[in-house]
Amino acid sequence: MVAVIMAGGAGTRFWPKSKENHPKQLLQIIGNGTMLQNTVRRLLPIIPPEKVFIVCKQAHQQEIARQLPAVPQENIIVEPQGKNTAPCIGLAALYIQQRFGDEVMIVLPADHLIEAEENFRQTLLDAAKIAVEKNVLITIGIKPTFPATGYGYIQFSDEIVSVGSATARRVKTFAEKPHLETARVFLASGDFLWNSGIFVWRVSVIREQFEEHLPHLNDGLREIAEYLNTPAEAEIITRVYQQIKSISIDYGVMENARNVLVLPANFGWNDLGSWDEVYKLLPKDKDGNAVGEGEHVLLNSSGCLIEVAGKTVAAVGLHDLIIVETEEALLLCARESAQEVKEVVDLLKRRKKTNLI
Amino acid sequence: MVAVIMAGGAGTRFWPKSKENHPKQLLQIIGNGTMLQNTVRRLLPIIPPEKVFIVCKQAHQQEIARQLPAVPQENIIVEPQGKNTAPCIGLAALYIQQRFGDEVMIVLPADHLIEAEENFRQTLLDAAKIAVEKNVLITIGIKPTFPATGYGYIQFSDEIVSVGSATARRVKTFAEKPHLETARVFLASGDFLWNSGIFVWRVSVIREQFEEHLPHLNDGLREIAEYLNTPAEAEIITRVYQQIKSISIDYGVMENARNVLVLPANFGWNDLGSWDEVYKLLPKDKDGNAVGEGEHVLLNSSGCLIEVAGKTVAAVGLHDLIIVETEEALLLCARESAQEVKEVVDLLKRRKKTNLI
Repeated sequence: MVAVIMAGGAGTRFWPKSKENHPKQLLQIIGNGTMLQNTVRRLLPIIPPEKVFIVCKQAHQQEIARQLPAVPQENIIVEPQGKNTAPCIGLAALYIQQRFGDEVMIVLPADHLIEAEENFRQTLLDAAKIAVEKNVLITIGIKPTFPATGYGYIQFSDEIVSVGSATARRVKTFAEKPHLETARVFLASGDFLWNSGIFVWRVSVIREQFEEHLPHLNDGLREIAEYLNTPAEAEIITRVYQQIKSISIDYGVMENARNVLVLPANFGWNDLGSWDEVYKLLPKDKDGNAVGEGEHVLLNSSGCLIEVAGKTVAAVGLHDLIIVETEEALLLCARESAQEVKEVVDLLKRRKKTNLI
Repeated sequence: MVAVIMAGGAGTRFWPKSKENHPKQLLQIIGNGTMLQNTVRRLLPIIPPEKVFIVCKQAHQQEIARQLPAVPQENIIVEPQGKNTAPCIGLAALYIQQRFGDEVMIVLPADHLIEAEENFRQTLLDAAKIAVEKNVLITIGIKPTFPATGYGYIQFSDEIVSVGSATARRVKTFAEKPHLETARVFLASGDFLWNSGIFVWRVSVIREQFEEHLPHLNDGLREIAEYLNTPAEAEIITRVYQQIKSISIDYGVMENARNVLVLPANFGWNDLGSWDEVYKLLPKDKDGNAVGEGEHVLLNSSGCLIEVAGKTVAAVGLHDLIIVETEEALLLCARESAQEVKEVVDLLKRRKKTNLI
């Protein structure tokens, strides 16, 4: 098995901690280590570091190499520009094919949180077993625990595909992020899972799918493949990336392919989409306040996340707020408005405050 | 006329901007200049700087001299410890008597805001005229504009005392800070005024009152008077201050004296008792936010005071909060809880965080 960690995201929802050059996946948001470091660490018991690939932007390459000393430099694949997940996965597939042949690829985002790591690894091993035997595309589906409106959903059919003890379901439909009412129906139905963005397949199988469903992208990938590990490589990749369109693997392949299975899993997954989700995961005092290091005076205050370094924070009559401070910026945000932090970043972008974002 | 500005206050309600060594009166809180500078400035058209005295703590002497270059150094009277307003006024009276004889003393706090300065000065001139002619203690009463619970009140009687066009009323009672219901009754009655803490009297008249109502303090003052401008002065003052009890001029003299008048005035007076009062006085944007210099992003936020220097502040879904940051501390406080800021200071004091307070 080979892992492909997609680490190109911007993570504007964690501003001011996340910035263009310090996206969410490169930050330590909960617990020890950055999200990327934890993503790699939890794979290492089943995948050696030589088989871990990272796809990222040029601007993050150096920091990623610094964070992952065990991963070989040549495993850090740089995209000249972000074109969503399909090109990212296609490019990684080329490198893997060249180095390791028709391996099983585990594709996963760099910025998710997983609680039950042993369970997570067993899920990947099961998925790999099925992917190898059945020549299918496998996506990991998370059993929903609440009617989330921030995730895509996958509906599975009655058809079960098993290899030994490993069991997957044939996918019936992919559903976009639903409204709350729809999410409640999904949850109640019992046959909808959250789309985790984690995929498992053999390199040859995904390449066939690219050929069938994304021929233009496939042409570009073939062109790159010819020049891989030649002096012209970077130039060709840049040229191809200028031409190909931005498209997600879900929209470009998964929703159209016939041989798609979902493996239902339950390993405490969280895509950590906002400061409010961080708040919910952090340990809290009796009044529900999650405060960082340092001196705090909290009077009649509850439900707050406070991350302010290097100074005393006093809160009086404060409820359900997120307070995050960096050297350059102070964010004060109602917890229920945590999704709007990305609008702050958009606004700063329009004001051309590029040093802040 | 001689002015005595009482500048010994601690001003914990403006933490974190106000600290033990930087109390409210020495800060620029609204507009230009510190509160003390403005207190002196608005007196200068009627009292020359040589006749302006400041009573303060040792720790503030240097800063006060720096803020008031026009006031002679010897007019800055240092108390070895704060013993409330009666000793402060008594001590100042000794210096004034020695230098200027039986002058009219205008006693006033260093940390009040006054809008109609011409009106304010005319009020003092009127009060001085009556004080000279009638040998009375005059207090300036402010016509209340709302049922304030943070001020003491003065009830006046029907008896009018006039000298020329200057008119005062005999005081009937002094009332402590009332509850809201009582404050409403006071406001409706029409014969209650806010106690501004501004007093006008001849030196000889207040000294007689000390002799009658505060004999112990008066003995101490007489002892000091003997050694004034001698090498033993500081030592005697220190010894006397160790012995005298802490008592306010209101409780020690005004509530007991018979010859007390109140001069009703209406010059836009505000004792600026909390950050919420500052908020109310500051210019605000269309959503009622009062923000300082620098970059601000306000989304769906209203009624906030934001004073954060040197960094961008983003507020999302924030309502009716006070946000004040200094190098060492960040205060986040519901506007309706602004009075509780002093509890933050108390708590930091109990935690022995003396560098912060």
